[in-house]
Amino acid sequence: MREAYKPVVIEGVYPELDCGRYPVKREVGDVFEVRANIFKEGHDKLAAVVKYREKGKRKWAESPMKLLNPGLDRWGGSFDLTENARYEYAVEAWFDEFETWRSETEKKVDDGQIVELELIEGREIVAKASERSGDARLATMLDEFDGGFYEDRLGLLFSKDVRVLIAEHPDRTRSTCCKNLEVVVDRVRARYAAWYEMFPRSQGTEPGRSATFREAEARLPEISSMGFDVVYLTPIHPIGTTNRKGRNNALVAGPDDPGSPYGIGSEDGGHMAVHPDLGTIEDFRHFVHKARELGMEVALDLAVQASPDHPWIREHPEWFKFRPDGTIKYAENPPKKYQDIVNVDFYSEDWRGLWKELRDVILFWVEQGVETFRVDNPHTKPLPFWEWVIREVQKDHPGVVFLSEAFTRPRVMQGLAKLGFTQSYTYFTWRNEKAELVEYLTELTQDEPKEYMRPNFFANTHDILPHILQFGGRPAFQLRLVLAATLSSVYGIYSGYELCENTPRGERGTTVYYADSEVYEYKVWDWDRPGNIKEYVARINEIRRENPALHELTNLRFHEADDENVLFYSKTLGENTVFVVVNLDPHEAHEATLSYPLGIVGDDEAYMIEELILQNEWKERGPSRRVRLDPGLNPAEIFRLRTPRTEA
Amino acid sequence: MREAYKPVVIEGVYPELDCGRYPVKREVGDVFEVRANIFKEGHDKLAAVVKYREKGKRKWAESPMKLLNPGLDRWGGSFDLTENARYEYAVEAWFDEFETWRSETEKKVDDGQIVELELIEGREIVAKASERSGDARLATMLDEFDGGFYEDRLGLLFSKDVRVLIAEHPDRTRSTCCKNLEVVVDRVRARYAAWYEMFPRSQGTEPGRSATFREAEARLPEISSMGFDVVYLTPIHPIGTTNRKGRNNALVAGPDDPGSPYGIGSEDGGHMAVHPDLGTIEDFRHFVHKARELGMEVALDLAVQASPDHPWIREHPEWFKFRPDGTIKYAENPPKKYQDIVNVDFYSEDWRGLWKELRDVILFWVEQGVETFRVDNPHTKPLPFWEWVIREVQKDHPGVVFLSEAFTRPRVMQGLAKLGFTQSYTYFTWRNEKAELVEYLTELTQDEPKEYMRPNFFANTHDILPHILQFGGRPAFQLRLVLAATLSSVYGIYSGYELCENTPRGERGTTVYYADSEVYEYKVWDWDRPGNIKEYVARINEIRRENPALHELTNLRFHEADDENVLFYSKTLGENTVFVVVNLDPHEAHEATLSYPLGIVGDDEAYMIEELILQNEWKERGPSRRVRLDPGLNPAEIFRLRTPRTEA
Repeated sequence: MREAYKPVVIEGVYPELDCGRYPVKREVGDVFEVRANIFKEGHDKLAAVVKYREKGKRKWAESPMKLLNPGLDRWGGSFDLTENARYEYAVEAWFDEFETWRSETEKKVDDGQIVELELIEGREIVAKASERSGDARLATMLDEFDGGFYEDRLGLLFSKDVRVLIAEHPDRTRSTCCKNLEVVVDRVRARYAAWYEMFPRSQGTEPGRSATFREAEARLPEISSMGFDVVYLTPIHPIGTTNRKGRNNALVAGPDDPGSPYGIGSEDGGHMAVHPDLGTIEDFRHFVHKARELGMEVALDLAVQASPDHPWIREHPEWFKFRPDGTIKYAENPPKKYQDIVNVDFYSEDWRGLWKELRDVILFWVEQGVETFRVDNPHTKPLPFWEWVIREVQKDHPGVVFLSEAFTRPRVMQGLAKLGFTQSYTYFTWRNEKAELVEYLTELTQDEPKEYMRPNFFANTHDILPHILQFGGRPAFQLRLVLAATLSSVYGIYSGYELCENTPRGERGTTVYYADSEVYEYKVWDWDRPGNIKEYVARINEIRRENPALHELTNLRFHEADDENVLFYSKTLGENTVFVVVNLDPHEAHEATLSYPLGIVGDDEAYMIEELILQNEWKERGPSRRVRLDPGLNPAEIFRLRTPRTEA
Repeated sequence: MREAYKPVVIEGVYPELDCGRYPVKREVGDVFEVRANIFKEGHDKLAAVVKYREKGKRKWAESPMKLLNPGLDRWGGSFDLTENARYEYAVEAWFDEFETWRSETEKKVDDGQIVELELIEGREIVAKASERSGDARLATMLDEFDGGFYEDRLGLLFSKDVRVLIAEHPDRTRSTCCKNLEVVVDRVRARYAAWYEMFPRSQGTEPGRSATFREAEARLPEISSMGFDVVYLTPIHPIGTTNRKGRNNALVAGPDDPGSPYGIGSEDGGHMAVHPDLGTIEDFRHFVHKARELGMEVALDLAVQASPDHPWIREHPEWFKFRPDGTIKYAENPPKKYQDIVNVDFYSEDWRGLWKELRDVILFWVEQGVETFRVDNPHTKPLPFWEWVIREVQKDHPGVVFLSEAFTRPRVMQGLAKLGFTQSYTYFTWRNEKAELVEYLTELTQDEPKEYMRPNFFANTHDILPHILQFGGRPAFQLRLVLAATLSSVYGIYSGYELCENTPRGERGTTVYYADSEVYEYKVWDWDRPGNIKEYVARINEIRRENPALHELTNLRFHEADDENVLFYSKTLGENTVFVVVNLDPHEAHEATLSYPLGIVGDDEAYMIEELILQNEWKERGPSRRVRLDPGLNPAEIFRLRTPRTEA
């Protein structure tokens, strides 16, 4: 039998992920809302607090909880997330003897009963608080009580002063506390950012050779002027020559083929080196510096794999698997073989050495000014490694963002997000129909994943040219951009998107690979070529910046549009409500009647539509309106409403 | 950094209640189904088992799990619950190196590749298994491999023998195990029983005095012939005289008023004594014995409260609260006072002594042959006490059933069920409308409460005469009986129900108390009085016995009936499907078209209706049928279908 049993039950704590096994995620500036069912036997009054502290600190801060729903014993409280840090929080609750006494005695007084004995019992509660706290004011009150008549005593014990003082010194000897839970508080960029992916070696003007960091730097002002926040570079390291792949993934490279940047490592170095053709580490730092001046940050690609020429193989053969014939084991996905790639062996005897090396690789680039990593195929490396390395890095660098490039089964993608990845690639790239978009976005923004998974919506990647872009051309690029940029708060495009580049490696609709992919060759682009949508991209990013509602994820709400090609939704933050309506069909115009959510527009109320993409304003009336979206003119509308009420 | 990290993730284990804080509940004979999401990085093959054992035993048994849904990484397994005991269970999973090798090598062979090196790698896996297990058959196979040519080696490593042997000796050094969870396996009576509540002192034939156990015994054959399984007696202990309540809860008792049996304790004894007017403890044992002969068991009322004359007050004043003036503290619900009752103080310095005494009270009655306790107002006593005392009792007496008589807020009622109460009173007594019945029953039978809460549906109690019975008369008694007896698998009535006794203490509809309640006076009943529904009750209980589907709770499914007064549902177990249709309005006849669930009856298929209450049979055709329920004739139908298919 326990020492002093704890009668208060705390259950159903929200948020709590997998019984506290993983932290939930929030961002700096958020108010962190906590809920719990709290009850005990009988009808006694309870008191409860949310406790919280930065992980590693000793002292808890506390914030009071209130009984939100008496019928369901649901309590709630909150605190402000001010630091980019990992917090601990918990709920503590106890029996409030004084408030129970007060409430019961009050009922008797109201009933006309004489409560002489009750007052003496109440004095006892005050005396215990006085003893517990040593608070002189309570001692004074006890003296006053002892010298008073019945009415004085009654007035004193029911005074606000006593109530407040007692509440300051609660008796928590039998208090119940739930287990400590955690919330990772990331910087706002973790939730709200526009990404631009590019191959730095393709940012030059001279064909047939690698562009340099200096040349790539020259493109930064344009990327910035399109409104991007993050410039993500595919791997910048030396590339192996053994079994190097040629253009269009040919098995054998030609003499001038530069190889895939994912074939990392040569005699020039491995994961901590830069490819000599790109320049020096100083050039890279200059690039980072330049981006920062333009208000952008640089994200690097972290691909944990090696070319057969990687220095690791010479220096740490124990990190690799060798075949019975003494040859190194190449990457395989039977029956396919990837002879230009060898994978490190995470189950090596020296896995500790390998884990530390990989951590040090990340820390090296953090020292060079990199705060964001796009992690290549994390789902093929052990999940415990990622959980460890992300915590190791964020311990001293809580601002570092990790984007999980896992396209695999949902539980694995969610598992990577739960264990610590800041952001995740998603199935968005393959979701085109209204019903599937509504279903998927509802899961991401309203169901449990919203607590830990930040979906970074890429409209394309260097490995994915979706069929809708292949067939739908310019309107498809526009509508998919609007979807990515407004459905999620963090999204990205891979360079060429703004040029509506959409030539696949084979017949349209048979592959998602690009023709003559940059992965295997040097490219020179005309960034101003006809048909580009650079201004459209810039305008969409500008709209995002101007509307705080679009900086949030979980505020997404779908509304009715009576055509299956037309998707209608909104986001609200404070006074800012943004409506988005998209024609999902890049080939045909579609019309629909949009129904505003209840209470937005009165039955015959007039209001102004402020369309933000084409920047028009016009007057409408009533709680629904007709819209026509023509792929060639306005594949999407982003609009705000102005009613006399919103003006007020 | 951990010693050998465990790469397999196990999450989303089902069933699991509040992160394993509480056990789930099942009954002897059930197959216990376990589910979990299990995954690791990459595409390796995994293996998993459910482990289980009776709590307290050292050795685990194991049952293999299968991958049920590869896309969702959902695995499942099961084991048989054969003992009335508390079981532990857990999920363990690991990487299956041999199956991974086998699957990858098979793909290469199918692709026409030579797998000489792969075979040597496969041999290595077999060699490790041989070493680990010391299994001579594996050693023999290794010899055979070493002496063989390529084709022999291939055939050997892909033989069923090797596969089976390796599976017998898995390498679990890196296996992951979820936390140990618990399931309380009760006897079937915990789920399936019909209860009959009565005041033993009112079972006689002579007015103005208490009936005895011997007289009450004389009623047992009739109760048994009505088909009841449990006879529940209100408290049988000596009753205090101080501040005793009179008839109809009068503040002052008349000289001949026997007092409420809930005012427990007098100079004749307390909770371990029987009221002398009922007889001796031997008489009680005789009563229990007689009930058992008739296939019934006796349930006692456990009311943890005392009259001011209870021996505890003299012998253990430390278990009670005294006022500043030295008087004992009576029960109160301010401004109301209950001066005939004093509550024990669960926060007494000697709470341990009090807890043990209460446990010993239960054990005393267990020794007298009582295996079921209806616990009065458990929600006014600390929840940790109940958790402790139920475990203490069930440790040596796992068959003891505790029914929680808590009518309070849902979280508290659920909390009591979670912590260990075998059955629970419910809101059924107040649910009359179709929508609210569907909603409440869906919660109880399909949502999480089904894992831990067994709803005992009482159609009335000695303190609750629902308005529908007050106004609806005989048809109301019939329809509410059918609902209670078929919606839940365990239900009860309070004696007088079979007589359609429905006179309230005041105006109809203003109270739920009975007029001249047995709680405060001796009663003599004419158990054969006109208008009784004894035969109807007997028939309903007979139908329950004959149909295994009605012994289950979670198999309840609602079906469409196109009238809001008509409730239509079914239960299925194996070949046995029972349909129930009830007219919820005791005043008017209603008609409805019933739609059978898909696949039961073909579009123009003929079938026989076998109606079980009135025992008629007739022919119908097609997937829906018209029913007319007339309160005076057939307020409900319980029926089975016979189609050529069900005959086959």
